[in-house]
Amino acid sequence: MKLTVYLAGEIHSDWREEIKKKSAALDLPIDFVGPMEIHERSDNIGDDILGEQSTAIAKDHAASSFNNLRTSVLMHKADLVIALFGEQYKQWNTAMDASAALASGKPVILIRPEKLHHPLKELSRKASATVETCDQAIKALTYILE
Amino acid sequence: MKLTVYLAGEIHSDWREEIKKKSAALDLPIDFVGPMEIHERSDNIGDDILGEQSTAIAKDHAASSFNNLRTSVLMHKADLVIALFGEQYKQWNTAMDASAALASGKPVILIRPEKLHHPLKELSRKASATVETCDQAIKALTYILE
Amino acid sequence: MKLTVYLAGEIHSDWREEIKKKSAALDLPIDFVGPMEIHERSDNIGDDILGEQSTAIAKDHAASSFNNLRTSVLMHKADLVIALFGEQYKQWNTAMDASAALASGKPVILIRPEKLHHPLKELSRKASATVETCDQAIKALTYILE
Amino acid sequence: MKLTVYLAGEIHSDWREEIKKKSAALDLPIDFVGPMEIHERSDNIGDDILGEQSTAIAKDHAASSFNNLRTSVLMHKADLVIALFGEQYKQWNTAMDASAALASGKPVILIRPEKLHHPLKELSRKASATVETCDQAIKALTYILE
Amino acid sequence: MKLTVYLAGEIHSDWREEIKKKSAALDLPIDFVGPMEIHERSDNIGDDILGEQSTAIAKDHAASSFNNLRTSVLMHKADLVIALFGEQYKQWNTAMDASAALASGKPVILIRPEKLHHPLKELSRKASATVETCDQAIKALTYILE
Amino acid sequence: MKLTVYLAGEIHSDWREEIKKKSAALDLPIDFVGPMEIHERSDNIGDDILGEQSTAIAKDHAASSFNNLRTSVLMHKADLVIALFGEQYKQWNTAMDASAALASGKPVILIRPEKLHHPLKELSRKASATVETCDQAIKALTYILE
Amino acid sequence: MKLTVYLAGEIHSDWREEIKKKSAALDLPIDFVGPMEIHERSDNIGDDILGEQSTAIAKDHAASSFNNLRTSVLMHKADLVIALFGEQYKQWNTAMDASAALASGKPVILIRPEKLHHPLKELSRKASATVETCDQAIKALTYILE
Amino acid sequence: MKLTVYLAGEIHSDWREEIKKKSAALDLPIDFVGPMEIHERSDNIGDDILGEQSTAIAKDHAASSFNNLRTSVLMHKADLVIALFGEQYKQWNTAMDASAALASGKPVILIRPEKLHHPLKELSRKASATVETCDQAIKALTYILE
Repeated sequence: MKLTVYLAGEIHSDWREEIKKKSAALDLPIDFVGPMEIHERSDNIGDDILGEQSTAIAKDHAASSFNNLRTSVLMHKADLVIALFGEQYKQWNTAMDASAALASGKPVILIRPEKLHHPLKELSRKASATVETCDQAIKALTYILE
Repeated sequence: MKLTVYLAGEIHSDWREEIKKKSAALDLPIDFVGPMEIHERSDNIGDDILGEQSTAIAKDHAASSFNNLRTSVLMHKADLVIALFGEQYKQWNTAMDASAALASGKPVILIRPEKLHHPLKELSRKASATVETCDQAIKALTYILE
Repeated sequence: MKLTVYLAGEIHSDWREEIKKKSAALDLPIDFVGPMEIHERSDNIGDDILGEQSTAIAKDHAASSFNNLRTSVLMHKADLVIALFGEQYKQWNTAMDASAALASGKPVILIRPEKLHHPLKELSRKASATVETCDQAIKALTYILE
Repeated sequence: MKLTVYLAGEIHSDWREEIKKKSAALDLPIDFVGPMEIHERSDNIGDDILGEQSTAIAKDHAASSFNNLRTSVLMHKADLVIALFGEQYKQWNTAMDASAALASGKPVILIRPEKLHHPLKELSRKASATVETCDQAIKALTYILE
Repeated sequence: MKLTVYLAGEIHSDWREEIKKKSAALDLPIDFVGPMEIHERSDNIGDDILGEQSTAIAKDHAASSFNNLRTSVLMHKADLVIALFGEQYKQWNTAMDASAALASGKPVILIRPEKLHHPLKELSRKASATVETCDQAIKALTYILE
Repeated sequence: MKLTVYLAGEIHSDWREEIKKKSAALDLPIDFVGPMEIHERSDNIGDDILGEQSTAIAKDHAASSFNNLRTSVLMHKADLVIALFGEQYKQWNTAMDASAALASGKPVILIRPEKLHHPLKELSRKASATVETCDQAIKALTYILE
Repeated sequence: MKLTVYLAGEIHSDWREEIKKKSAALDLPIDFVGPMEIHERSDNIGDDILGEQSTAIAKDHAASSFNNLRTSVLMHKADLVIALFGEQYKQWNTAMDASAALASGKPVILIRPEKLHHPLKELSRKASATVETCDQAIKALTYILE
Repeated sequence: MKLTVYLAGEIHSDWREEIKKKSAALDLPIDFVGPMEIHERSDNIGDDILGEQSTAIAKDHAASSFNNLRTSVLMHKADLVIALFGEQYKQWNTAMDASAALASGKPVILIRPEKLHHPLKELSRKASATVETCDQAIKALTYILE
């Protein structure tokens, strides 16, 4: 049995690399997918595809279309979503992706520092499971496959 | 025809009152529902129902159950969700509620200041419509009922 | 038993008035809903709500949001959709609304002149029933309620 | 990861060939499916299968059954739909297929010339993303797979 | 609490009248709906609405559209379906309606004479409950409302 | 706004009466529905409707059909399910009803003594909220309606 | 692309063999599944699994469970259902299976002799396509895969 | 055709081994999945992943999250669920899993001793089929694949 896992969350740190490496080290039969991790590529994708947009708003609008398209296709392929929240950034896309997954019956593991317990309490209660570190998420993936 | 509208978003300002009053002044046939707006009641609802919890985490866990329960029952009753984002606060519950509504086919009007255009671009693209003020949201409700 | 019927289709002729009057004359217990029928209001609704948009494309984009919002709320309320195609206009919204209704299990009556039999053959085959005139659609509504 | 993409739209130009060739040139792991592209085969498929039908209407009716059957089976297999609109033809099937895909949660890329911005504004707002050329659609597919 | 019950099955005997009368005598808060019970009206409804059709097949095709339309609208309104099978007739519509109801999560009471136990065993196993007479079906309705 | 609440759980104590009385005392706008509470009626309902069955197994089989029918109709009407577990009895129907409600997106309040924390931990984690007494469940209902 | 096709319908003639052979001769990439075709095995499967049942009704009840189980698992695997009606037999299972497939969005090809046009008109109108012979069904399968 | 079967039920006896061995002996093309079978691992999994929890309740709460996560991922992969009830233990998870599977349209085979006929009559009536031994369940699996 092979699993596909969508990694939702911020793209400014290397947490996805950490998860992928540790999963590979354990030989877990998992394919990881996720959002575009190169920040400028993600912000400029509308211009990259449609040509330079005339305003910042038009640019954002165009970029958001292709980012949503990518998320939608890849999330449909996933058996499970891991959503990581850090202490910086608004991370509304992370909340949006985790909630969309839950609403369509897809299991979600939430990773967040204990510090964020309070503001994430409702999302944490809806998630399948909540952990604090990537290592713990890997342990949860391992448990599913034991 | 009567509509039920769920008002998702922060509970620290009086934006819900503004919407309700303006809707009443226009005689719009709309019932508004939403989360508990008394902040301490929302944070303490677990203790209020189950008795004092032993730790902050247990208290949050208990409170989140009843807040999610309330949201779930009322959101199912709604024909439409209005989700407001302001410049303060993390507002992950707002993103979670808006996304859950969209994922289950419920129309969503997003209210957010122009300043938040960039971080909300993906959610805005998925929403049925995005406006910047409560007045504009009222105009959108009026348009549905014209 | 009361029915709600969504009237999808062009807004340049008075076919909706014809259906409403004939339904009223027969005392059919039906509430009719539908898209904004004042063409300029529909085209300008983005500017009306958000203020004047800077380009024709931005104006269209804004207007389409509120038109889709309206359609989405009212179509969810409907027990049945009547979609009329005439010989003029592109009428892609009519095809879009009829198809969305069918895809979500909502019955659709198609009204189209015999002349359009060929280009509408696939949509007609998916529709619950196809007629050629408003009078025939009224007869179909009457039959449901007999 | 392999994707299946359904190419909805007119069958009078060679836009599907263009997309398939460019996708192959980029080694994108994509299988393309779509409607019958030989126009007479599509129009005559009812007669081809059931024998010559007695009237033009019966012929259309028979053909539409098998065209819908084909679309239904292949669209269910697709991860994503690309729908192209040109300036000629009514293209109601394209609107119908794009809308059915969206209504069942399948992502849709709309390709249309800027000239058609206005009549397609509502469908464009519902689509996951809108582009103007096949090249741009290829870039969008590439972005999903990066 | 009021229930709506769809009465699927043959239209050649007066079993629907029996159920309605007995339900009324018991003051059960139930609205009954069902197919057109006047056989010629049902067979001719295509001609009645669209004008005389040129062939028996065209006539049947037209009639079936409006019969399916009626069933679809009324079945969506129902909380429960009662499907009666007798010893005569093919009754494929009864099997079709009962199965469609079950497939969409709607409870079904099957009424059939013991003699038909064998050929209806698979449908009976899928139905919510199976009885042999209208009186027993009334008792089942009563039980729901006790 | 009026709510309908299904009360799942054992029928040997008077916990439903307690909830109904306390809800009435608080003027909560709630209609309560639930399984047949007269034990012999529930066990004999197959014989009561179909006549005496020849074996204990046939009797159970017949009774279960009508009990499931009743539950299915009433649970569809409910906005919310309250499921109570006590220390006696197997209560597999309670687990079955609570799980079916959750699987179809209906909110569930679990009532169980602390003693049963361990064996109910997985169901409790899936439920919207878990409480220990009827009084606490009433407080949760009140919170939804505040 | 490989398709799985469920062959619903009577098990007394060799129509399934005809379809499988002709499909193989054309090298169509199709796996066929269907109900148990050995009549006694199907009727006795309850006894074969559970031991001899005490009555004809208990025997039928037991057999129907395993026949429904088989159908349910295999139909979920299918991309498409072919349902054949002949002039003999009640064939209520065929109607039940075709209708369940349609209600869950699965395309259905109906095969029936012209003679059965009238009693099958409503099911035929709901089916994706209707043909009269196995050869025509093979042509329809071929068309999907062209 | 390959099937995936989820084995729900108690983890204190070796019934899963029996089913797996007998399936292997018959060369059935079936992959079996199921809950964690090492009791302490299942009870401690929260502590194993998150670190030692401060109270028995916190420990149970943490463990239940990961057990539900595992069940959710694996049950989504399954074509069919086998749920075994024995005479010991509360087995509420078994009832919960079987009911969740049925509510989402997944076929379920119930295994239970005749002794438990009465308390399981409602769940048995909803299950696809009920048997008394693992051998009988194997025969049912064989029948699906014949």
